[in-house]
Amino acid sequence: MVTPFEAMNAVGLVAFAIVGSLKAADAEFDVLGVAVLGVLTALGGGATRDVLVGRVPAMLQSTWDVGFALLGVAVAVLLARRVGARLLDHPVVMLPDAIGLAAFATTGALVGHDAGVTPFGVVVLGTVTGVGGGLVSDVLLQRVPFVLAEDFYATCAVAGSATFWLAVEAGASTAVGAGVCAALTLSLRVVALRRNWRLPTVRLRAES
Amino acid sequence: MVTPFEAMNAVGLVAFAIVGSLKAADAEFDVLGVAVLGVLTALGGGATRDVLVGRVPAMLQSTWDVGFALLGVAVAVLLARRVGARLLDHPVVMLPDAIGLAAFATTGALVGHDAGVTPFGVVVLGTVTGVGGGLVSDVLLQRVPFVLAEDFYATCAVAGSATFWLAVEAGASTAVGAGVCAALTLSLRVVALRRNWRLPTVRLRAES
Amino acid sequence: MVTPFEAMNAVGLVAFAIVGSLKAADAEFDVLGVAVLGVLTALGGGATRDVLVGRVPAMLQSTWDVGFALLGVAVAVLLARRVGARLLDHPVVMLPDAIGLAAFATTGALVGHDAGVTPFGVVVLGTVTGVGGGLVSDVLLQRVPFVLAEDFYATCAVAGSATFWLAVEAGASTAVGAGVCAALTLSLRVVALRRNWRLPTVRLRAES
Repeated sequence: MVTPFEAMNAVGLVAFAIVGSLKAADAEFDVLGVAVLGVLTALGGGATRDVLVGRVPAMLQSTWDVGFALLGVAVAVLLARRVGARLLDHPVVMLPDAIGLAAFATTGALVGHDAGVTPFGVVVLGTVTGVGGGLVSDVLLQRVPFVLAEDFYATCAVAGSATFWLAVEAGASTAVGAGVCAALTLSLRVVALRRNWRLPTVRLRAES
Repeated sequence: MVTPFEAMNAVGLVAFAIVGSLKAADAEFDVLGVAVLGVLTALGGGATRDVLVGRVPAMLQSTWDVGFALLGVAVAVLLARRVGARLLDHPVVMLPDAIGLAAFATTGALVGHDAGVTPFGVVVLGTVTGVGGGLVSDVLLQRVPFVLAEDFYATCAVAGSATFWLAVEAGASTAVGAGVCAALTLSLRVVALRRNWRLPTVRLRAES
Repeated sequence: MVTPFEAMNAVGLVAFAIVGSLKAADAEFDVLGVAVLGVLTALGGGATRDVLVGRVPAMLQSTWDVGFALLGVAVAVLLARRVGARLLDHPVVMLPDAIGLAAFATTGALVGHDAGVTPFGVVVLGTVTGVGGGLVSDVLLQRVPFVLAEDFYATCAVAGSATFWLAVEAGASTAVGAGVCAALTLSLRVVALRRNWRLPTVRLRAES
């Protein structure tokens, strides 16, 4: 039986791979570069999480995750010729991407909990798992990482994984904590997209 | 009792976080981006060091370091509105930053010594710990890392951690080696700042 | 006795260090920056490989690899004044660079095999070991990584390490698999250079 969480994870892997591949195609990378960027966007956050807690990354040990990422790459290559990069702003990609963010933030928080890190560590691992893949691929594409520059994106993962920690600390099981984390991250992201939420920037005093 | 070394480390964490946060504010990142860059600049070097020797990063396991980094972010956000990015070139930031470089290079050399790496490994770990946070945040900000491009900065950490190894090899205790490393790194950096020292660049033969 | 493989590895370390150092000199980095970029280009792929499978990087534990990398830096600094950056496109650098790619892809595949990762993991580790150093140094130099953007470069490592896995799976010893991997990676790269092979790019539908 597939759990709701596994389904979310699979949706997220496909969506992240599509986003990474389309960005690479938009930057005129060759087919291999498109595949590398797509796979890295899907699996990079989880790999970073695993390295941080001293595990061999799941992507080197399991086959399913890699399969979903490659599926996303294939979809992107097919769609690229028909639809183009504007797909990146389309709900057909953005909703699955939000689902992926929620699923990945949750796995990060769970791994952090199992590794016995501090509350800050739980939030770091949740956030890194959620946004790490997109961040690395933006760096490789020579773009300022969009998760840092303006979107209400990483914030959702921060809020979700912090809530995971609060819930577990308050006595909830990790399963309940994971559900709360995924639901909160996803809702925040969807609402932020619909309402076009922004975090304030920090204004520097103008040089005179 | 707080040892001189712990005090240096705390000063460095706050200073590095201020530097990273101000750079991010200067690049018009939102509040979360500013916090992420500040924390990463303060804790990124140590995390890289820990991953390289196969440890779970200290920042995921201890609370104090994170607290000092967040304090630096808070100070930067408050100062940003009043003072602006020119603070980055002011002694009020540059001296604590030099103290941090010295403290971090020393922890890197010590961790390398404990892990039984080669002399080259001790220098790599000392330098990575000192400059890794700034390097990662410059990459995320799409800037050529200043530690590599022109300043007499990483050089101080290289010299300090090499001297640590020489001192310990010559029979000194690691405590004495650490003291020598911190003192040398700090003095070199302060003198380099005051005298505006530069390393020579490698001139390429002009294409004809 | 030096095995053919050890000789290839040494040639590759020197060549990769020359390439990284010349790129850094071309970007007007100072002497330390040039040395850091050279060493990182030579040793960065192997270090990433080791971190991924949970080992302390070889470069922190062995002295020979570091020596070859520093030799490459020294050669580059001497040549830079006489020859300039056009050396980067000269067979005197490109052939040893191809030898290095082949040697590194092979060590990556071997390490992956020993660590018991999936076939995908073997290919990832072979490719990361071969192209990781160049990729990191391009990111630090603020260049779109050339291994991703257009060259028939990473593709050779992908093909070589996939063939390693197929050979071993078909019953060959790891020594034979390593020989096949190295030979295939090297031949592909040399032929790609001579014939100016390119992978197709993924065309996006033009926005209207």
